[in-house]
Amino acid sequence: MNPEEDRRFMALAIALGARGLGRVWPNPAVGCVIVKDGRIVGRGWTQDGGRPHAETVALSQAGSAARGATAYVSLEPCAHHGQTPPCAGALVAAGLARVVTAAGDPDPRVAGRGHAILRDAGISVTTGLLADQAEAVQTGFLTRIREGRPMVTLKLATSVDGRIATATGESRWITGPEARRMVHALRASHDAVMVGGGTARADDPALTVRDIGVTRQPARVIAARTLDLPEGGTLARSVAQAPLWLLHGASAPDAARAAWNALGARLIEVAEDGGALSAPALLAALGAEGLTRVFCEGGGQFAAALLRADLVDEIRHFSAGLGLGADGRPALGPLALAALADAPRFRLQDLRPVGPDTLAHWVRA
Amino acid sequence: MNPEEDRRFMALAIALGARGLGRVWPNPAVGCVIVKDGRIVGRGWTQDGGRPHAETVALSQAGSAARGATAYVSLEPCAHHGQTPPCAGALVAAGLARVVTAAGDPDPRVAGRGHAILRDAGISVTTGLLADQAEAVQTGFLTRIREGRPMVTLKLATSVDGRIATATGESRWITGPEARRMVHALRASHDAVMVGGGTARADDPALTVRDIGVTRQPARVIAARTLDLPEGGTLARSVAQAPLWLLHGASAPDAARAAWNALGARLIEVAEDGGALSAPALLAALGAEGLTRVFCEGGGQFAAALLRADLVDEIRHFSAGLGLGADGRPALGPLALAALADAPRFRLQDLRPVGPDTLAHWVRA
Repeated sequence: MNPEEDRRFMALAIALGARGLGRVWPNPAVGCVIVKDGRIVGRGWTQDGGRPHAETVALSQAGSAARGATAYVSLEPCAHHGQTPPCAGALVAAGLARVVTAAGDPDPRVAGRGHAILRDAGISVTTGLLADQAEAVQTGFLTRIREGRPMVTLKLATSVDGRIATATGESRWITGPEARRMVHALRASHDAVMVGGGTARADDPALTVRDIGVTRQPARVIAARTLDLPEGGTLARSVAQAPLWLLHGASAPDAARAAWNALGARLIEVAEDGGALSAPALLAALGAEGLTRVFCEGGGQFAAALLRADLVDEIRHFSAGLGLGADGRPALGPLALAALADAPRFRLQDLRPVGPDTLAHWVRA
Repeated sequence: MNPEEDRRFMALAIALGARGLGRVWPNPAVGCVIVKDGRIVGRGWTQDGGRPHAETVALSQAGSAARGATAYVSLEPCAHHGQTPPCAGALVAAGLARVVTAAGDPDPRVAGRGHAILRDAGISVTTGLLADQAEAVQTGFLTRIREGRPMVTLKLATSVDGRIATATGESRWITGPEARRMVHALRASHDAVMVGGGTARADDPALTVRDIGVTRQPARVIAARTLDLPEGGTLARSVAQAPLWLLHGASAPDAARAAWNALGARLIEVAEDGGALSAPALLAALGAEGLTRVFCEGGGQFAAALLRADLVDEIRHFSAGLGLGADGRPALGPLALAALADAPRFRLQDLRPVGPDTLAHWVRA
């Protein structure tokens, strides 16, 4: 019960859990460390696809050493029989003496019952240790439980004057190779990569994770109201490499639906609102599919629609040391703010150089 | 002759010199440290208005202890009789055993002759120590000697999408009080603060240094081709507090010239180029007046004109965590780039949070 030691092991559990981000949806990315007599006897994190859970992995590593040990878990252990038996029960069965958790699990099937099962079995339970850090890792999972939608991270890669391309549309490359590599890592830490249809048409992007050795590709989500996308483009050709989800409106022509179905894309119809897909309906549809973390890479109109609907949770802003001028393409479309006080505001979480560029990590204020 | 000790004292001399930035033009901001038997016996930096020079101050502090000592000077000591006797001669007269310098002085009246006077007197001379650091402090002085113009630092205070005001022109406050305070410190470290006429009309700014206890105000430079500025505005009312220089074209009406003269402004006529003041001519005129460091605070059109003419040496970019949208006012006017490769490029020098905002310091690549 050394507070400094408790914090150290919990920080490790949270960091281990974060390894699963982007690969465990619809489950939370949890970490677990089992400690006996000051030594780590088991470590685990939620595995690809969401199971086995972190506790199962750590308990299996610990074996009989778990008896009388302390488990540090970054989220309240589950209490419900899903595709695996509940972790709270497994911790009891293994004979743990003490369990320390960080964030509570608001999932109505857990919501305190995980902790109750442990306490009822006579285990000493400490909750809320490093809760803020753990919740920051769980933002996507918690947003889906609470609001029925995934969290949205908006990526911006701009000049110092907030432009993402020249007047002629040239955008390769504003940022350097280090920033582009980090974008691939950020893609991999999200369940899906998302762009608007205009960007998909203009840039013909692959939106896959490349060159960093991942085995699991995030889903690629395109907001394409009328399914007006090039059927011979990069997205269509790479359906076998990474899932392609096309979110469209009721007005999408039957022929286009049939063609994209045949190409292997997944079609999801969502409500329209004033000539565009409704941003809240779009995100609700992604939440219903189980997505917890979505990485939006533009374009400016789509990003502005998400900001206007107050649906952007974090911004990762890469800035390169160059000017492109007012004739360049803006990072965000119009926001129609009545006053400066109405502007969407974000709080600085992290700031660092990335190669020759800068990266600011902003989270909703 | 301990290299580590040499670097340490030279770094101190450079830092002392930097204290004079913004207050010593047209002279360089030099620092001097005199060391005897490992102890500092004199320190000095160029005083307000450019004299006495750093060496004079340090020698006067050291007194007879200068005999046989080592002097660290951040710039080659002057060799010419100006309003004060040459520093190289003063160092010889004081009996220094060794002089270490950082940057050479390209002023044709010095240019190696300072070092030669020392060597001819039998003093051991080491040159070029921490030259890059010293030259970074001397950028303004060196730019004026080499190009006949002051260095230009461009300040940007933007949203994440590079906007400096809402569609309705609201710009108070995008950045927080810490950033605004730092802007005052940056103003104080430059010889002049400069804006375009459009910004002077729209914002009615004071452009003075406030709330940080300075006794010497930078000149306020307005690029106002036709002198179309409000004669009852803040700039006119504050002429007694800080110099007001109005740069105008040949087309400025006589009545306006007379009115601003009567108000106490200084009028400087510069060449026009395509309906605007010629940016190179404008800076050449400021260089002829002796300015070495100019802090440009916009607006976007004026900043773009300076960038198009390749006249921006450094950018201080404050970014606040908010979005303003494409209907907001852009930080830079059009640059008319034919290709991304033509964009003006800058290298990251420093990056830090400032209160809730970020500050990136970019220097010409």
